[in-house]
Amino acid sequence: MGNLSMAQTVTEAAAAARIAAADLAVRTRADKDRALRAMADALEKHAPDIIAANASDCRRAVAANVDPGILDRLTLTTSRIGAIADALRAITALADPVGEVVRGSTLANGLELRQVRVPFGVVGIVYEARPNVTVDAAGLCLKSGNAVLLRGSSSAKASNAALVEVLREALADNGFPADAVQLVPGDTHDSVTELLRARGLVDVVIPRGGAALIKSVVENAIVPVIETGVGNCHVYVDAEADPDLAIELLIDSKTHRPSVCNAAETVLVHRDIADEFVPRALEALAAEGVTVHGDARVAAYSADVVPAREADFENEYLSLDIAAAIVDSLDDAVAHIRRYSTSHTESIITRSQAAARAFTARVDAAAVIVNASTRFTDGGEFGFGAEIGISTQKLHARGPMGLPELTSTKYIVIGEGQTRAKNANT
Amino acid sequence: MGNLSMAQTVTEAAAAARIAAADLAVRTRADKDRALRAMADALEKHAPDIIAANASDCRRAVAANVDPGILDRLTLTTSRIGAIADALRAITALADPVGEVVRGSTLANGLELRQVRVPFGVVGIVYEARPNVTVDAAGLCLKSGNAVLLRGSSSAKASNAALVEVLREALADNGFPADAVQLVPGDTHDSVTELLRARGLVDVVIPRGGAALIKSVVENAIVPVIETGVGNCHVYVDAEADPDLAIELLIDSKTHRPSVCNAAETVLVHRDIADEFVPRALEALAAEGVTVHGDARVAAYSADVVPAREADFENEYLSLDIAAAIVDSLDDAVAHIRRYSTSHTESIITRSQAAARAFTARVDAAAVIVNASTRFTDGGEFGFGAEIGISTQKLHARGPMGLPELTSTKYIVIGEGQTRAKNANT
Repeated sequence: MGNLSMAQTVTEAAAAARIAAADLAVRTRADKDRALRAMADALEKHAPDIIAANASDCRRAVAANVDPGILDRLTLTTSRIGAIADALRAITALADPVGEVVRGSTLANGLELRQVRVPFGVVGIVYEARPNVTVDAAGLCLKSGNAVLLRGSSSAKASNAALVEVLREALADNGFPADAVQLVPGDTHDSVTELLRARGLVDVVIPRGGAALIKSVVENAIVPVIETGVGNCHVYVDAEADPDLAIELLIDSKTHRPSVCNAAETVLVHRDIADEFVPRALEALAAEGVTVHGDARVAAYSADVVPAREADFENEYLSLDIAAAIVDSLDDAVAHIRRYSTSHTESIITRSQAAARAFTARVDAAAVIVNASTRFTDGGEFGFGAEIGISTQKLHARGPMGLPELTSTKYIVIGEGQTRAKNANT
Repeated sequence: MGNLSMAQTVTEAAAAARIAAADLAVRTRADKDRALRAMADALEKHAPDIIAANASDCRRAVAANVDPGILDRLTLTTSRIGAIADALRAITALADPVGEVVRGSTLANGLELRQVRVPFGVVGIVYEARPNVTVDAAGLCLKSGNAVLLRGSSSAKASNAALVEVLREALADNGFPADAVQLVPGDTHDSVTELLRARGLVDVVIPRGGAALIKSVVENAIVPVIETGVGNCHVYVDAEADPDLAIELLIDSKTHRPSVCNAAETVLVHRDIADEFVPRALEALAAEGVTVHGDARVAAYSADVVPAREADFENEYLSLDIAAAIVDSLDDAVAHIRRYSTSHTESIITRSQAAARAFTARVDAAAVIVNASTRFTDGGEFGFGAEIGISTQKLHARGPMGLPELTSTKYIVIGEGQTRAKNANT
């Protein structure tokens, strides 16, 4: 591998990224796709070096006695590096969002107006252990014409450094600025703070990780932030639900992958269907190893139900646990969701058109799902081909973010001498 | 007038606004337009009360010796109240952005996906003296289904209180929650800070005013902010400009309304056209009473040119002053603009297609204008029918913001029992 030097401070890195971003903004799709393929090939070529670096991170993780699940997500193998490279190649198949005309018209005075997509410029990503995010984020930012500042966790620092060195060399070898992809130096918390306060240099920071990371980023940032991923998702089983369908969707929403943000964390059951649904649901959940934390009305159905405290309704479990409550009406379900939801994904199971319409109109979340699993809130499942995260804020992007969500726009106005004094439209 | 009580603290006001917002979110366009017409009628009916309240603000302004321009903008008359009411009526002609389907598709597994516009929820507006903003912002927020917290300046507090009381009464009389429109209590700076930190209660704050107000809001906010309005706008006269057209566009950009954000603040002239253009431009600017602050190369043309300091290129004048510099190339013009621009509006005057294409591709601003006045960056001129401000940030909205920019979106997903275990698309 080469030895391309990187900036020593976040401010230096951000300044170098701005220069790279001006170059990236005017690159053609063909150019960017060529670079993405070169990056993928380079990762596979240098897999042994990357695996060696990763092994040192894994040894530290083992010494620190981390959870086996986290160790597994940290570990890189030849086949995993192949999959990471293939994910870069898959990005070449996606349309380039840059230059897309979002809207356009010819004004009354003859001015031609076009609103076109342009890159943000410099994007910061603050993320936790998984090293595949390093490559994924670099690829998505490159395709959308953005320079990226990557701030991974210190637990993956050797892996991330090796990956980024390979990507930078591939960029440089293909006529792109290496500083389009930079790892933010330092593994203290200070470098995150510096990144979050680099107003004028960094256009947006996207945190990817747990609730504590995201809260810290949002509260400390002066630069614009897109909040992602915290999902306290509800399944509401309406009075007019098909009980069989409700069981199947509840089990999929809760157990298909319990550790992710679109997994269900609470089930709300209409009282009119409780006698029929709750005993069967408790049995089905128990069969999947799920612990139910229920309110008093749910607990009345089984001694196995753990009494729910306020915190059970407030927080994500991200495990084989679910909170459960019985509600007196759809209105009460909506009120419960308004109170506890993180506005990620909320679902209703019902045969009633009126209930589905009321729920989708009144529940305010990134995704509101009728008669399907909460697990479908995902960029891949939505057909976006890629996902940089799932926004749970209302500004700019909401829900799964693909390449267009990594862009801003500008208005281009073409005239032939129009002045406000002579040619005003208003 | 009635006497509808308002909350005593910002947190109380925001909590009341959230309740109102849930109601507003599901109102039909017909309902909202009816309320807007009632608000307009009520303003005209209560014009004497509003003018009396305004007179007390004007007396304080006179006693404080404020600038005549500011006093004029503060003053309300029967005909101005009529114009403010008509602006509300004009909003009824605009399409309702809420419910618009932004995109939609049927996924491979049969799930129906729609991304639809929804209101933000609670919008905070922090603004300076002009009382018409109070009514304008209330009308635009109501039409887009948002509750609004208005934080005007203390210099207009009696006017704003009178206007808001009339609007709230009209809302209540028409079956709408009065708390959809609230004046943030208190005229200390504390109430602004409280508004900016009301995370979870306030969905977005939009500051409208001078650079100092906007900077303070951005730096102190924890809630999402949309930056507006600071415009250090450039006119670049290319080597291949038509000199007559260049003079006309420069004069319009600078003098049509010097105090606003889309007025030109700097002119950059390509050296190859300087001998022909600069003497005529200096003469034309002088004839309009404009003082030119030029670099050494511009100053060489006339003893009337004031030597420019760094601050002349950095800041908005918002007056009959302009900074001027000669550049050696289009590249140098782009570099100058990158260094000093606030990314509001940048213009080029040229007959060259190549120069126009290079400039529009490489200059990063909310609006890039070819052969027309900078003064066209405006929601009314762009045909949006209304404007809540001009965003100079890249997130969410950039450039003039109309009703759609006051909304977020949500994904509605309709299925018939799809699970990830059985029906995944990926």
